[in-house]
Amino acid sequence: MSSKLSGWDDTIVALATPPGIGAIGVIRLSGGEAFNIANAIFPSKDLSTQLTHTIHVGVIKSEEDAIDEAIISLFKGPKSYTGEDVIEISCHGSPYVQQQIIRVCINKGARLAKAGEFTQRAFLNGKLDLTQAEAVADLIASNTKASQRTALHNVRGGFSLVLKELRENLIQFSALIELELDFATEDVEFADRKKFYELIHNAQGTTQQLLSSFQLGNVIKNGVSVAIIGKPNAGKSTLLNTLLNEDRAIVSSIAGTTRDTIEEIINIKGILFRLIDTAGIREHSTDVIELVGIEKSMEKMRSADIVLYIFDANEMTPDALGIVCDNFNSLAIQFVLAANKIDIANMVSIREKFSFFQKMHFISAKDNLGIEELEDELFTSTVNEQPSSENTIISNTRHQAALQQVSNSLTDIRSGLDNQIPGDLLALDIRRCLHYISEITGDISNEDVLDFIFSKFCIGK
Amino acid sequence: MSSKLSGWDDTIVALATPPGIGAIGVIRLSGGEAFNIANAIFPSKDLSTQLTHTIHVGVIKSEEDAIDEAIISLFKGPKSYTGEDVIEISCHGSPYVQQQIIRVCINKGARLAKAGEFTQRAFLNGKLDLTQAEAVADLIASNTKASQRTALHNVRGGFSLVLKELRENLIQFSALIELELDFATEDVEFADRKKFYELIHNAQGTTQQLLSSFQLGNVIKNGVSVAIIGKPNAGKSTLLNTLLNEDRAIVSSIAGTTRDTIEEIINIKGILFRLIDTAGIREHSTDVIELVGIEKSMEKMRSADIVLYIFDANEMTPDALGIVCDNFNSLAIQFVLAANKIDIANMVSIREKFSFFQKMHFISAKDNLGIEELEDELFTSTVNEQPSSENTIISNTRHQAALQQVSNSLTDIRSGLDNQIPGDLLALDIRRCLHYISEITGDISNEDVLDFIFSKFCIGK
Repeated sequence: MSSKLSGWDDTIVALATPPGIGAIGVIRLSGGEAFNIANAIFPSKDLSTQLTHTIHVGVIKSEEDAIDEAIISLFKGPKSYTGEDVIEISCHGSPYVQQQIIRVCINKGARLAKAGEFTQRAFLNGKLDLTQAEAVADLIASNTKASQRTALHNVRGGFSLVLKELRENLIQFSALIELELDFATEDVEFADRKKFYELIHNAQGTTQQLLSSFQLGNVIKNGVSVAIIGKPNAGKSTLLNTLLNEDRAIVSSIAGTTRDTIEEIINIKGILFRLIDTAGIREHSTDVIELVGIEKSMEKMRSADIVLYIFDANEMTPDALGIVCDNFNSLAIQFVLAANKIDIANMVSIREKFSFFQKMHFISAKDNLGIEELEDELFTSTVNEQPSSENTIISNTRHQAALQQVSNSLTDIRSGLDNQIPGDLLALDIRRCLHYISEITGDISNEDVLDFIFSKFCIGK
Repeated sequence: MSSKLSGWDDTIVALATPPGIGAIGVIRLSGGEAFNIANAIFPSKDLSTQLTHTIHVGVIKSEEDAIDEAIISLFKGPKSYTGEDVIEISCHGSPYVQQQIIRVCINKGARLAKAGEFTQRAFLNGKLDLTQAEAVADLIASNTKASQRTALHNVRGGFSLVLKELRENLIQFSALIELELDFATEDVEFADRKKFYELIHNAQGTTQQLLSSFQLGNVIKNGVSVAIIGKPNAGKSTLLNTLLNEDRAIVSSIAGTTRDTIEEIINIKGILFRLIDTAGIREHSTDVIELVGIEKSMEKMRSADIVLYIFDANEMTPDALGIVCDNFNSLAIQFVLAANKIDIANMVSIREKFSFFQKMHFISAKDNLGIEELEDELFTSTVNEQPSSENTIISNTRHQAALQQVSNSLTDIRSGLDNQIPGDLLALDIRRCLHYISEITGDISNEDVLDFIFSKFCIGK
């Protein structure tokens, strides 16, 4: 484990709760001097003589000036988040008061924590491996059931466990190789060659499963972008409103998701679907798919994960729809068809008219008919599988890149085995493979990588 | 004490930390079912058998789904903020995760708290009187040393203590009156009539002191607005920048104070001075004071607590300046004069030229000369006294109105005393006076008043 970080022994302080006015705010101190600093600003009792995991009420002072009445929580290392002595000060939710408390902690010897430095210390002290630390950031950023589940699974060591098994498989394999080397000169019959292949096969299976979970992981983390396209009066706005209304309870409960974007967001089975550039789609009523030349609209469609093409089921002809579909296919654009206005249609003739089309859904945006099925289609067309809380899902490009290297090494080992290359060369490949696994867990790491990873955390975590 | 609030016995839940993404968030539960609800979502141990003021780590679950790894703090009533059983859940700082935890608490029987409802319960349970509860809101809103001090002083019962003394004085007075009534028929000499006057005199003194602190309290709470006015090239922008630079460390440390306004804010001795409509002053370089007809600028000046009139010391004549001052005086506008550009002036002649003017400061905005003295002048012209942490300062219009009634009642008692009105009539006036004091402390209150007071709190407090 790398522990070359400078100043790792000092005591850090930061606001752990979001900035701004609230009922309370929490300031966190971690390090060898945490209790001494807390004692210096909380003179009513000696905190170092108190039990860990206890709570104390009193006045925070800067010399003689009372700053706040606060609640102090004690966590004696190693039984703390960072593994060090930790003090949490729960104070009144005034940014001014919080700043004064942080200031007096600094005056008494603490240093303002860098982004992610508490979690970094937890990692350096062996409380978390690197995948768990990264999952902490994912959990904080989670905004759906799927992203929360995936992140929490990994915070709790789900991914670590899979990697541990992978490593153990490889070490077992390595032991077998050494055994063969020992007996090689004696030219004995080797019963366990099958075991070799089995171990590598298992390792490859695990690696492949993790790698293929990345697509799902990415969707869970970043959502699916959907462009709703259609002629004027096809019912785009009505469909959009119906989708949003259906989902209002869920959407409005995810604070701040849409504030900075021009996207509308709906939540289908725990995955966020971003209806991209909705404002634009609402305003421009041009039928963009027939005017292939309109580059901007094309770009939007192409940047979407999927296009939802809506049309008036009563007016559209199979020939015209065929051209639309051909255009999508020629551009390799994934799409779903929504035949709208079935409330005023003869369903028998409509169904017959469009019987040759796939991914076709008959809906009434106005009367909320067929909408759920359409959502299911969007989900299955893009997400494929329902995320479960049991499986490890990776969503981090760093993990993906390292796993790809693990996979390559395994392929090399396998082909070395097939070609009966010398055991010491095989051992090299195994070491390479183990190296990449250790990079993921952080057993091997360098300061730059760690700084990069933890810099993406918020301050105070 | 009024305790007619409906549903006061149920258990309430709310996010206590500011909304948004942070390292952690804290959810607070208060009420008779707090421990049962916490046990239902935190299955790893029975929290009700644990000691108060202890901390427990584990997984929050919604039935079988893990929502988060969290830290639970226990406060058994009456040793808690509200006086009831309180549970604080410190979870990961994801709004989604927080919402899920609140949701599962509600599923298990909690109700979402209204704004200020935790503090309202603390008040109803006698943990705080009304002045302390109101000071909690002031402390949360505090953004300077003075506002933090004043609010904390009152949170800790500073104002309550003064009111208690006032009440005791009155009750003692009342006892003396009754004594006199008892002896009235016996026509004995009354040695203690002096004592009567002394008590009323003291009560009047205290009330008057509190009432006169309101101006300071208001300034502490709301700051002082300053309009910087002057001819083009008088140095307005330079002065503004110098004032802001001088103060940058302090200003930038007060997060969010300027975000929603067009004001620049500086902090002089712990009081915020708001340089009003600075953008406008920066843009419009017209010498507004000489163009009295420009109504808008006049309005700005009039709405300011003080005008800082800046001019070029080398160009201005005493006559012209006299007209400016006359204009200010005729409009009853308080002002300070800043004779700028003394870096390129002959100080002897300049001082002589303007020797007849009051509140005159010789400065160089460019070279940062005389700026501190100018700031001192702004402070003393508007704040008068340095707020101290010992004195009770009122800043609440509700308190001011009630204290005015107390003061009126005391005057009536005094004049009743002078006119030797019957003791039972005096007793009525005393009751009236005590009534208004009880209104301030909340010993007498009604639901509407309480709802109004607590509705101004944030949710979660």
